[in-house]
Amino acid sequence: MRAVVLRNMELVVDDIAQPEPAEGEALVKSLACGICGSDLHFVKFGQEMVTASQSEGRSRFAPDLERDIVMGHEFCCEVVAYGPNTPETVPVGERCVSVPSRGAYSNEYPGGYSEYMVLDASMLLPVADSLATHHAAVTEPMAVGLHAVRAGAFSDEPAVIYGCGPVGLATIAALKIDGVGPIVAADFSRKRRELAGMMGADSVVDPRELSPVTALERLGSFSETVLFDAVGVPGMLSLLSREAPDRGARIVVVGVCMQSDTIQPMAAIEKELSYKFVLGYTPEEFEESLRALENGLIDASQFVSGAVGLDDVGAAFETLADPEEHCKIMVTPHEEHSL
Amino acid sequence: MRAVVLRNMELVVDDIAQPEPAEGEALVKSLACGICGSDLHFVKFGQEMVTASQSEGRSRFAPDLERDIVMGHEFCCEVVAYGPNTPETVPVGERCVSVPSRGAYSNEYPGGYSEYMVLDASMLLPVADSLATHHAAVTEPMAVGLHAVRAGAFSDEPAVIYGCGPVGLATIAALKIDGVGPIVAADFSRKRRELAGMMGADSVVDPRELSPVTALERLGSFSETVLFDAVGVPGMLSLLSREAPDRGARIVVVGVCMQSDTIQPMAAIEKELSYKFVLGYTPEEFEESLRALENGLIDASQFVSGAVGLDDVGAAFETLADPEEHCKIMVTPHEEHSL
Repeated sequence: MRAVVLRNMELVVDDIAQPEPAEGEALVKSLACGICGSDLHFVKFGQEMVTASQSEGRSRFAPDLERDIVMGHEFCCEVVAYGPNTPETVPVGERCVSVPSRGAYSNEYPGGYSEYMVLDASMLLPVADSLATHHAAVTEPMAVGLHAVRAGAFSDEPAVIYGCGPVGLATIAALKIDGVGPIVAADFSRKRRELAGMMGADSVVDPRELSPVTALERLGSFSETVLFDAVGVPGMLSLLSREAPDRGARIVVVGVCMQSDTIQPMAAIEKELSYKFVLGYTPEEFEESLRALENGLIDASQFVSGAVGLDDVGAAFETLADPEEHCKIMVTPHEEHSL
Repeated sequence: MRAVVLRNMELVVDDIAQPEPAEGEALVKSLACGICGSDLHFVKFGQEMVTASQSEGRSRFAPDLERDIVMGHEFCCEVVAYGPNTPETVPVGERCVSVPSRGAYSNEYPGGYSEYMVLDASMLLPVADSLATHHAAVTEPMAVGLHAVRAGAFSDEPAVIYGCGPVGLATIAALKIDGVGPIVAADFSRKRRELAGMMGADSVVDPRELSPVTALERLGSFSETVLFDAVGVPGMLSLLSREAPDRGARIVVVGVCMQSDTIQPMAAIEKELSYKFVLGYTPEEFEESLRALENGLIDASQFVSGAVGLDDVGAAFETLADPEEHCKIMVTPHEEHSL
């Protein structure tokens, strides 16, 4: 089967062995798979990430970069077959989504940037006919936003989102579901601010022109604030401790920063800040995210900005460096598309 | 009146003007005032702290180091007089404690390292006859521990305390009050570990010999853990993210780190850690701390290790550098004492 393979830290299109479903597994056809910011990071910082993980005795994240990796963990698929003695959770021929149950960045299991994958059959979720395939594929990033909001926000309190890439936008969508607000969203990019407004932010700002917290103060007077770091670059933790408006403000770190970062504990101590670092989502949050897309609580139509066949994935990675151009690009292994 | 004055970042004993109580204020005689780790830090890093605070636009902490400062914010006093038109909250001649209602490290108001102070009359709390003056004076540091525990711990969950100086010991005392445990306490110093055991730690370890988290695992199997940083030096935040045993562990930062610190966000993200920075206490926690000392829920007898008159405060600051020698030293402005 054809796949986009990360080999020697370069993306190449190649023919690789099609996986076979073992007992408990389903073979699925990848219909659409979103390009995640983490995939971009991984191509750029993969070596650094693996080295840091090893040096700190963390074992969770340790792919072998000498061997092929097929990325792609935000997918909508069609069920092709089941392994032996495996209950058919979603009928063959129908669409499903799933948490990346065989891992992401795995040397063993190809992800959604390939024509076929195997998944844990018990974790497949059927997709309602009314939901477009490309929109079902954003179940995963939307679940990340839902998890971040559940980890740190309460209804009727103000929220400030730093960074309106896919993670920031998913966070805004989740805040709307949970009735958290008003919502102020900040991004340098005009296009991203526009998307933040469409997702439901009450106020969008270019932080070069206006501090997001000042924008919030213009909306009213609030005693508790939650700030989301959806940027994930060094300096953000410190920036947020300076900007946090009040004693006891909570900072939820949902943007993944791969490098070391420097903070000033005194600034955090004086305001009694809390930092909550979050990762992923629960299976329940994943399913709730799918249902929110199905019933229109989340509108993915603005979020998904384009699609590419396997041959154009490399070019799509380049394109995503410009936030004015695209937000979420779908990889469609069985269809030719160009940006 | 006589006072220990911080002048040009040196401690000197001098005669200074005795304050007069304005309306709403009480004049009190400082009977005993604990030397706080923050006082030691302030003498060493005061300039750095003020500069950092100013450069980050923080205004909370901005004493003028060119002018005299009389430190001391952990005091037990005797009421001498009230200002005009001021209700007498504690009878003249009786003992009281209070939050440092006129500030700590103030250029305007001398603290407890002087013979007399003025305080907000409405905030004085009478001290029961049964409680020794030197023990009443630890109401303030014990309130710091209580506040830290209330900010991050729940009953029946395990707690690990890094650092058994006065802040760590106060945290242990508060954990016992709230029924949090088992409690593992770690310190390099044999004497401090001994005190931690007396305060109620279930297991005490020298972290050079055994990881505190390993010590905890020997006590049982737990799904949620709260870790307290009561050390407050650069490197602790990163150390705790490596040592935190489980997904979702909470780290309460109660040790005040004056310098910048470097963290690895990925380590915190992978375990979904939270860091809660705490400072001070509420007036209610302060009062609860006094009551806990009065009714024997906290035993301060081991905690207070000595007393000095004003002439020996400088020497006491030196002595406190050795954790084997002393824990909490009381300054007694009206009595001669030596270590």
